[in-house]
Amino acid sequence: MESTQLIDHFSKYIQLNTEEVELIHSLFSYKSLKKKEFLLRSGDICRTESFIISGCLRTFSIDENGFEHTLTFAIEDWWTGDLLSFFTETSTSYNIVALEDSEILQITKTDLDKLYLKVPKLERYFRQLIQNAYVAQQQRIDQNLSQTAEQRYLSFVEKYPVLLQRIPQKHIASYLGITPVFLSMLRKKLSQR
Amino acid sequence: MESTQLIDHFSKYIQLNTEEVELIHSLFSYKSLKKKEFLLRSGDICRTESFIISGCLRTFSIDENGFEHTLTFAIEDWWTGDLLSFFTETSTSYNIVALEDSEILQITKTDLDKLYLKVPKLERYFRQLIQNAYVAQQQRIDQNLSQTAEQRYLSFVEKYPVLLQRIPQKHIASYLGITPVFLSMLRKKLSQR
Repeated sequence: MESTQLIDHFSKYIQLNTEEVELIHSLFSYKSLKKKEFLLRSGDICRTESFIISGCLRTFSIDENGFEHTLTFAIEDWWTGDLLSFFTETSTSYNIVALEDSEILQITKTDLDKLYLKVPKLERYFRQLIQNAYVAQQQRIDQNLSQTAEQRYLSFVEKYPVLLQRIPQKHIASYLGITPVFLSMLRKKLSQR
Repeated sequence: MESTQLIDHFSKYIQLNTEEVELIHSLFSYKSLKKKEFLLRSGDICRTESFIISGCLRTFSIDENGFEHTLTFAIEDWWTGDLLSFFTETSTSYNIVALEDSEILQITKTDLDKLYLKVPKLERYFRQLIQNAYVAQQQRIDQNLSQTAEQRYLSFVEKYPVLLQRIPQKHIASYLGITPVFLSMLRKKLSQR
């Protein structure tokens, strides 16, 4: 069953009994995405939060000049979605696209609310998860304000070596807020040290 | 008692019984800060999370060239602290300073852990709180990547009119990632429209 990986993941943080495991199995639904397929498009309402079994997804916005700006990457055992759109049931500003063939498990807001009621210890899991994500984001804001592109790139390399192997350079450039050409120059310069 | 405001705040989100209210009163301690006084300095361990009763605090980092970069502002009914340092008990990269005479209620990690155990519904409150903070941060990252300084300033004006009245321009400039001179030019230009 596809949701075994999700149960294994939860079990790293909290203990689940058989009944709770069954409930989780029943509330998540499986979806596969082909590379380049969209999970969410700007203007949609984000109806599900998604746990990634395999693959890689990218969240990005498109500005008024048509340029893409990458907000997040998500791979196995991470979550993706737009929390604001999901919780407020309003249309999203973001797009989420598969960068590789991907498999995900999805839960709707109604079912997640049900899950929180039946398994309140999941509040703790999600609180800790979102806390960690908040901390990572705050470091990113700090770096955007205080560091050079080179420092930000080196920090990305150190923090996410796995992503570096799997994600096209142009998307890493867009995550760092620089052009692909500039990233290419930066990499060349660093490789010559 | 100073913690009445905190109880009132919690009560907007969750229902608390007398015993829980008493526990909260017992676990938070009151502190007052004079304007310009530091709550936290880079290199310290953030031993408490703080709920603000009155006043205004600013979180900032200092880069290797000595420039300050503002991460957050926090006023009445908001929380401040460095979550990473607080939860991992490692030294912080941030500074938190009072921009006005301020009154806060502080809780240590040990006492917050105790509080979560005794009043698990607070997990829900803090999950929702941190979710909202995460969403606001993501919007800020998106704006930093995709918008001009003018657009970011106008968005700040719209989102935080109260902060605009209370916070010196130089700190707003540092929050937006621009110089005070550039912010001043921007404001002049906008006022002439």
